[in-house]
Amino acid sequence: MRMRKKKHAADRLDVCRELILPLAQHEVDYRKAESNPSYYDIQEIFGNKNPLHLEIGCGKGQFICELAKRNPNINYVAIEVCDDVAVIACEKAKKEDLKNVRFMITGAEYLLKYFPKNSVERIYLNFSCPFPKVRYAKHRLTSPIFLPMYKKVLINGGEIHQKTDNMHFFEYSLEKYSEQNFSLKNLSLDLHNSGFEGNIITEYEKRFLDLGQPIYRVEAICKKGENND
Amino acid sequence: MRMRKKKHAADRLDVCRELILPLAQHEVDYRKAESNPSYYDIQEIFGNKNPLHLEIGCGKGQFICELAKRNPNINYVAIEVCDDVAVIACEKAKKEDLKNVRFMITGAEYLLKYFPKNSVERIYLNFSCPFPKVRYAKHRLTSPIFLPMYKKVLINGGEIHQKTDNMHFFEYSLEKYSEQNFSLKNLSLDLHNSGFEGNIITEYEKRFLDLGQPIYRVEAICKKGENND
Repeated sequence: MRMRKKKHAADRLDVCRELILPLAQHEVDYRKAESNPSYYDIQEIFGNKNPLHLEIGCGKGQFICELAKRNPNINYVAIEVCDDVAVIACEKAKKEDLKNVRFMITGAEYLLKYFPKNSVERIYLNFSCPFPKVRYAKHRLTSPIFLPMYKKVLINGGEIHQKTDNMHFFEYSLEKYSEQNFSLKNLSLDLHNSGFEGNIITEYEKRFLDLGQPIYRVEAICKKGENND
Repeated sequence: MRMRKKKHAADRLDVCRELILPLAQHEVDYRKAESNPSYYDIQEIFGNKNPLHLEIGCGKGQFICELAKRNPNINYVAIEVCDDVAVIACEKAKKEDLKNVRFMITGAEYLLKYFPKNSVERIYLNFSCPFPKVRYAKHRLTSPIFLPMYKKVLINGGEIHQKTDNMHFFEYSLEKYSEQNFSLKNLSLDLHNSGFEGNIITEYEKRFLDLGQPIYRVEAICKKGENND
């Protein structure tokens, strides 16, 4: 679903600026981002040494805000490419006065510019765009473009937690995880009938739930080589 | 579903004896089978050097007989623990005068007694018993008891082709494949609406299809280490 253009999005974002992480000048070719890093000082930003979890594609932020409320001892960075959506997420976090969430308004392909290797414990992918057409498959957030990036920033044993309502995107994701040597855990082909506890229902998820359609979920565990690369 | 005891099963099997591979004395502990092998001479048995594919749990043999008819240049060994079922499969192969199928009437846990390392190109697991209770999980044909055995007999790049109607068994299997470093390919969460061609519908599959229930299918690719163990 395309979001309607938000009026005054820039002004509204400016009000939340303390929650929004600054962006460096982006390379035209995202593949060069890693060799020209501009790492965040996460300890400085949050004022503590708590573990860092990311959500990639946080949408309107219902998931990340609820998660941050439940887990005050984890630092969260939520990434969203669309500022018309991100503004709603930022306003939500500000209204709830959450101290452990920050936002980045950019594409996931620049991840390696901002986060060093082995710095992230967990990545959430909730109802990411499935890009059903094969010629757009590389844009899927579990494609062989993105998984090696996640593997770099994740610690050994770090986890990707993915939920989707799209069967073919889920099939594709499972294949790609196994190709990239991730181990699969807590795999569910019908999350809401699986007995899984602690699920945070996103706006998007609620709609599919109401239609009686299954939600797919998996945890993909990052297994690194001996040199932890 | 429990099979009714077949009358004269032993006599009927005797009529098909040229299709049934002989068994050695079995160890009480199947884990010792590997160290006391009694390998089949597959080239001698089939009179050719064609690739070897196995089906573990062939039931009444509809799948393996159709597969063997379609692929005369592949040798098939079908394993079935229950002789009341195996007798039907053997009679089917005999009636169709199939030259490229043999049967073993034993449990899959003795695989390493009869097949050397790197001797099998493909293994089929069709609608294997899901053993839903957790305390029987080790009996599932994709448990960590069986997958390392398959990995030994399979060549590097060899494949396990699995179909099942049981969602939780499929979830479990995908997790175990990834744990054991198999790569997943052609994964389908609804086989009969996936566009997959060449599927051979088993007796059991037909029933679920008629009920409109999805069939799950995956190909798990064996990735061996440098020493090919």
